[in-house]
Amino acid sequence: MNDVVYQKQQFGQKVGLGRSPALLVVDFVNGFTNPEILGGGNIPDAVAATKPLLTFFREASLPVVFTRIVYADDGADTGIWCMKVPRLRDLTEKAHASQIVDALAPRAGELVIRKTQASAFFGTHLAAHFIGQGIDSIVLAGCTTSGCIRASAIDAMSMNYRVTVASDCVGDRAIGPHEANLFDMGQKYADLLGGADIVSALSRSRSGSSDAAGSTT
Amino acid sequence: MNDVVYQKQQFGQKVGLGRSPALLVVDFVNGFTNPEILGGGNIPDAVAATKPLLTFFREASLPVVFTRIVYADDGADTGIWCMKVPRLRDLTEKAHASQIVDALAPRAGELVIRKTQASAFFGTHLAAHFIGQGIDSIVLAGCTTSGCIRASAIDAMSMNYRVTVASDCVGDRAIGPHEANLFDMGQKYADLLGGADIVSALSRSRSGSSDAAGSTT
Amino acid sequence: MNDVVYQKQQFGQKVGLGRSPALLVVDFVNGFTNPEILGGGNIPDAVAATKPLLTFFREASLPVVFTRIVYADDGADTGIWCMKVPRLRDLTEKAHASQIVDALAPRAGELVIRKTQASAFFGTHLAAHFIGQGIDSIVLAGCTTSGCIRASAIDAMSMNYRVTVASDCVGDRAIGPHEANLFDMGQKYADLLGGADIVSALSRSRSGSSDAAGSTT
Amino acid sequence: MNDVVYQKQQFGQKVGLGRSPALLVVDFVNGFTNPEILGGGNIPDAVAATKPLLTFFREASLPVVFTRIVYADDGADTGIWCMKVPRLRDLTEKAHASQIVDALAPRAGELVIRKTQASAFFGTHLAAHFIGQGIDSIVLAGCTTSGCIRASAIDAMSMNYRVTVASDCVGDRAIGPHEANLFDMGQKYADLLGGADIVSALSRSRSGSSDAAGSTT
Repeated sequence: MNDVVYQKQQFGQKVGLGRSPALLVVDFVNGFTNPEILGGGNIPDAVAATKPLLTFFREASLPVVFTRIVYADDGADTGIWCMKVPRLRDLTEKAHASQIVDALAPRAGELVIRKTQASAFFGTHLAAHFIGQGIDSIVLAGCTTSGCIRASAIDAMSMNYRVTVASDCVGDRAIGPHEANLFDMGQKYADLLGGADIVSALSRSRSGSSDAAGSTT
Repeated sequence: MNDVVYQKQQFGQKVGLGRSPALLVVDFVNGFTNPEILGGGNIPDAVAATKPLLTFFREASLPVVFTRIVYADDGADTGIWCMKVPRLRDLTEKAHASQIVDALAPRAGELVIRKTQASAFFGTHLAAHFIGQGIDSIVLAGCTTSGCIRASAIDAMSMNYRVTVASDCVGDRAIGPHEANLFDMGQKYADLLGGADIVSALSRSRSGSSDAAGSTT
Repeated sequence: MNDVVYQKQQFGQKVGLGRSPALLVVDFVNGFTNPEILGGGNIPDAVAATKPLLTFFREASLPVVFTRIVYADDGADTGIWCMKVPRLRDLTEKAHASQIVDALAPRAGELVIRKTQASAFFGTHLAAHFIGQGIDSIVLAGCTTSGCIRASAIDAMSMNYRVTVASDCVGDRAIGPHEANLFDMGQKYADLLGGADIVSALSRSRSGSSDAAGSTT
Repeated sequence: MNDVVYQKQQFGQKVGLGRSPALLVVDFVNGFTNPEILGGGNIPDAVAATKPLLTFFREASLPVVFTRIVYADDGADTGIWCMKVPRLRDLTEKAHASQIVDALAPRAGELVIRKTQASAFFGTHLAAHFIGQGIDSIVLAGCTTSGCIRASAIDAMSMNYRVTVASDCVGDRAIGPHEANLFDMGQKYADLLGGADIVSALSRSRSGSSDAAGSTT
């Protein structure tokens, strides 16, 4: 139903994976895999699906960045978001809930960005880092689809990066918002592609064929 | 259904209207009231509902800001968003589609922000303007709920403004995304309140009672 | 000499201390008091002059924020600035050089911002923090005058904060750039006032008189 | 004298012209060539020296961006900077003073950024534009050296672009601040190179040799 008006108005064109992609793994921390804290739902599945995607980026020596939400121990930098969602305050530097899950532990040289807001770019030096890396495309994995992924996708696209949401590598505490936000992002801000399909496309493009690169023509 | 996990995790607390609110009217331009271009749906109704809200802010001498999407005539600043949604390119300075609807025409002294991305804050001097005005709260009207309203709400909250979405003064080309995004914003980023209720609350608080001011306790 | 054209073109008007000032203490860390690392010059004097200013802000319960330059231990977020000035790389989380000097040690509840660039605002959540605090004015102390103070003053003014540089509470590794940058800031971006004069002005304004508040008329 | 401590602390390393440079022409408008308004000094000379540099970028099909300071006709977006430097208020959309000088008139397809603050990046979509262009290096021409050039150089470097200030293509209303700011930028943020030397270096690098590209080693 929605699709009719979106199609008529020509939403949802493809942007492609570009020539120089980075993987951005957003907020896959213990507190978001746990339904008793801030997560649950299909987030554990998304973590599992991200593993081969991460391995591919590492083996191809493509840039990988992780994010965590971290507030000061004394609460000095909590704000309106922590008023709206009070449990965020528990995500302090050493808290178990704010550590990246073991299955996807960052390696030396992979930047880990601390953030206090939904978007990976807001109030962080991530944009400058990506400029320094010379990337033109961002593949998004992480959680939650309706929260930090959506916010990061908007900012990444606004900065003129080609954005691809790895649709099975993002998860949410509830399936309704997960699906609604995949729809919105696919129509307006990003391509949607499964993790395995991203690996295939990037493998092809990096072995000579240029199928994966988005063409602006 | 969604609500169960959100409630258990204590999402959706109230942030209130603050002490010094501004009205931000996002992208109520001809191209978005027209289903043949980029809008339609319940956007014309949202325009009508915004009229008394705008009148209230004007009569109370509270700050009002409008936004329009505007690309250079020669397309020099189109980017990935225009690749994803090609019809955005038509929103140039003089195009009928990019003019604010007559019913809500800005007055002298009301800032009109030109933007090229979804968020009213991205790549604009809106944040600096609001800092100069000394506001602590933003009431959002405009369109689309799932696009520029959602993106602006995230940024406004991320900057530590209390955000209230005037729920009947925002509209979208299709009702599904409209409702899904109201849900997300209400849980995570903003209070939801009808335009008339916002007027009542602000009237009360400005006549001496402090009911409208959000308390952080 | 310079002054003639600046005066003729009406540069250097006063902006005042506003109604709600915060103290921003920039990069007063061990590495910048030491001429063998990145500092020296009149920076130790500026540290000493900042002590009573800091005490005043604390006793008046006015917001205080500190900044430190901190790069990841594995160098993952060094960039062009570290290429231009290689010794910055030594400023890692636990390095002695990157710790705030003992004389001005932050207290619980005083935000300490980690940054990777010259401006205290670039790639940080400082602007959002200040919005949450409702301030309208920033008093700058720290180092270096020609580096992080100058960069922070430009950004603070650009965000429409009234900026006052505490002229004896900022220092630099060499006196020429120190003075040249005080001149530039005083003409274009900020008021210049000694620390003791700032304390006097704020004391007066907070005890009822409004002499310190800048008037825009 | 200054140089001793800067050299000892290893400031002033070279960053190079990168592989993909853009030319950013800042605020070369009528109001800044005129000593009766906001400019004068060596700015007319800098305009003349910029002509061949601009011609080179155009003939090499390298990106060119211009900036202008523009405030709303009704003054709705003036702020603290206009309080500090009141004559800035005259730079409105149609004012003669805010038009780019005839000698460097922009061509179709060359982005012209309107800004309200010193930095070409502050409150504008310039960073997103440059990301979309895939550049890694910015050559700066324009005015004033101690104002908008300095502010833009800091932001450009902070975003991890290699910055080269075309030293004879930047100018200021007074020679003291001009020279002091060239010194600061050369030590901390940017390479200094004459316009003709930039043309030579880029010509060499684009004809096969890679001398111009900065090496990070």
